[in-house]
Amino acid sequence: MARIVMKFGGTSVQDLERIRNVAQRVAAQAAAGDQVAVVVSAMAGTTNQLVNWTQEASQFHDAREYDTVVSAGEQVTVGLLAMVLQDMGLSARSWLGWQIPVATDAIHGSARIQGIAADGLIERMAGGQIPVVAGFQGLGPDNRITTLGRGGSDTTAVALAAALNADRCDIYTDVDGVYTADPRIVTRARKLDRITYEEMLEMASQGAKVLQTRSVEVAMNHRVPVQVRSSFLDAPGTLVVDEDEIVEKAVVSGITYSGAEAKITVQRVADRPGVAAAIFGPLANDNINVDMIIQSASPDGTSTDITFTVPRSDLARALKELEKVKGKIGAESLIARDEVVKVSVIGVGMRSHAGVANRMFQTLAERGINIQAISTSEIKISVLIDAAYTELAVRALHTAYGLDAD
Amino acid sequence: MARIVMKFGGTSVQDLERIRNVAQRVAAQAAAGDQVAVVVSAMAGTTNQLVNWTQEASQFHDAREYDTVVSAGEQVTVGLLAMVLQDMGLSARSWLGWQIPVATDAIHGSARIQGIAADGLIERMAGGQIPVVAGFQGLGPDNRITTLGRGGSDTTAVALAAALNADRCDIYTDVDGVYTADPRIVTRARKLDRITYEEMLEMASQGAKVLQTRSVEVAMNHRVPVQVRSSFLDAPGTLVVDEDEIVEKAVVSGITYSGAEAKITVQRVADRPGVAAAIFGPLANDNINVDMIIQSASPDGTSTDITFTVPRSDLARALKELEKVKGKIGAESLIARDEVVKVSVIGVGMRSHAGVANRMFQTLAERGINIQAISTSEIKISVLIDAAYTELAVRALHTAYGLDAD
Repeated sequence: MARIVMKFGGTSVQDLERIRNVAQRVAAQAAAGDQVAVVVSAMAGTTNQLVNWTQEASQFHDAREYDTVVSAGEQVTVGLLAMVLQDMGLSARSWLGWQIPVATDAIHGSARIQGIAADGLIERMAGGQIPVVAGFQGLGPDNRITTLGRGGSDTTAVALAAALNADRCDIYTDVDGVYTADPRIVTRARKLDRITYEEMLEMASQGAKVLQTRSVEVAMNHRVPVQVRSSFLDAPGTLVVDEDEIVEKAVVSGITYSGAEAKITVQRVADRPGVAAAIFGPLANDNINVDMIIQSASPDGTSTDITFTVPRSDLARALKELEKVKGKIGAESLIARDEVVKVSVIGVGMRSHAGVANRMFQTLAERGINIQAISTSEIKISVLIDAAYTELAVRALHTAYGLDAD
Repeated sequence: MARIVMKFGGTSVQDLERIRNVAQRVAAQAAAGDQVAVVVSAMAGTTNQLVNWTQEASQFHDAREYDTVVSAGEQVTVGLLAMVLQDMGLSARSWLGWQIPVATDAIHGSARIQGIAADGLIERMAGGQIPVVAGFQGLGPDNRITTLGRGGSDTTAVALAAALNADRCDIYTDVDGVYTADPRIVTRARKLDRITYEEMLEMASQGAKVLQTRSVEVAMNHRVPVQVRSSFLDAPGTLVVDEDEIVEKAVVSGITYSGAEAKITVQRVADRPGVAAAIFGPLANDNINVDMIIQSASPDGTSTDITFTVPRSDLARALKELEKVKGKIGAESLIARDEVVKVSVIGVGMRSHAGVANRMFQTLAERGINIQAISTSEIKISVLIDAAYTELAVRALHTAYGLDAD
């Protein structure tokens, strides 16, 4: 007997027929003798509709009211799924974030879970009841509903699994696992049987949309085994686990790309101490994440160009901040470009293998793809390239690192 | 300066444009110097959609899950209205039933409000903030969401007005007041300037759909002046007040009809003591309200027919109960009919006027309309007639009691 958290996304609960399908999967898991808790998202499309209404209501809306509105979708699906499970003869009840509660911080719209009071749930599960928990939502210190940001139901599921001390958290979704690359671009992409938390974390934050980044962080911190699998097929998915549990580590596990970046060049800045601080200080204060940074000397040697990337959604705000400091740092002009894409090569094996970065640069050079910026971590190399070369670059790298399926 | 509760129904908030219209009315009331609290329903159609899903999920669903699902609609509108009010520069925040809380009993699906903890709201209103309160929903003793039944937002508004010790509760709706009869049937129906709580209570329970019956009870118990008025026009509506505040009392204030009844005849029951108890006891135990009752002797004098009405929605259940006792009471057969309608004449003036009932019977007789059953209260006479005669009866009575507009 195991204790399992099963999470179903919006496409898996988008109508009553699909909700019945979910209920059958839950019933099968319970029939196998496991204790089961379920986490569900809103019906596909509902959250978008609610978000659109909030934008129509007010362009600069109160994040607390936003959370009140957008959390309504999960409230509907938990009630409906609990009803269907009861109709099948199972003991089930719905739980909203504030009822458990799923305690979060006060950052409305992208709150972080601080704790889940799971004792009551554990007791009920031991008695055979299936808790059906609303994903994406929690209760802030102000006694108001908070939401966890897009994809937040993944985080609810993993955090619940941690609080329940569950044996596994199964994330049911519309893909059947984690792939070596986006299968829509790379036809020879392979489904991975296992992947480490660290790799999954890099993949999620570098553009793979299969799991919310935050959910992987929580899984890693609490060592919750997570399985990504299909709602519609019965095949096993991809298991996200500790590095110790993977015997043969690939040098590179996957290639990702993310078009969510924008590039800013601050041209001909005075080459003196304090300039970088003058540029990046205000951005940090405004909560804008700067990723890749390159500094290049100007031809005459008296000034430099500073190029860096920010999330595309923050580009307008970043430019506004930079306009304020432009005069102070003696910059000639600001150039913004958003037709760029960040391509990343990820794998825990590269820690112990030399030449991984070099193969990337060479592969891209052979295809005539110019690298505009580079950033690296211990298990990842990212390059910024012209967005037009995205597919070419991803396919070439997939082949170069030996990831192609036979 | 007055303290006013403004309540807006589903058609008044059915899209963002209408929500803006509501916000403007709220802003105007606040600009007049009043302290304002707002109660809103779900967008028109939303609650029906949610109810349909619950029926699709399970025919015999858990009322607690039903409440979880159907209360989601108001959660959306309170958030959106609060945003729009903020966007107009007003201080506003949304309140869900569980946040205030609006404490109710445990009867999920048709819960009764037991108390509203309004101190926090009073303090905020004194500070200029406008509470935007979700109608229809409360918090049960089991810490789960309850709902108050169809039209329950009216009750939320009136109960909130009582808790806030408000000067008035304005119910904004898609009609501009309470009429002497349904204007869709009686073209010469008149809008009433004032009506007593007692009359409004009878009208609401006898088929006038303008206010939920329970809301009028609460208003009467707490002496909350209620105004029914249009969301779309600026004219004054109908004031529901204490009898003392109406100088000229009409003998009859209105004619209503209700097709929500069904008639059951238990034929040729043994004429001995205990038969009525054997019939009505099981119905009472099953929470089925019996309204009109007639007992008529059979030709041979050894048995009687017992005819009575029940809510049409309870007809199937009532027949099931009666089938069980049929043999015991020696009844020959059960006849059910639902093509019946109850027409009522209502007015506090009839307490001190003789001949009101007689005029009703005479008027119907002159039109050849057969009366199948009669029930009366101090301020109401109801008759059950063939549904085909509804319009004819209502119009004739409207004229007979001198209610026609000039």
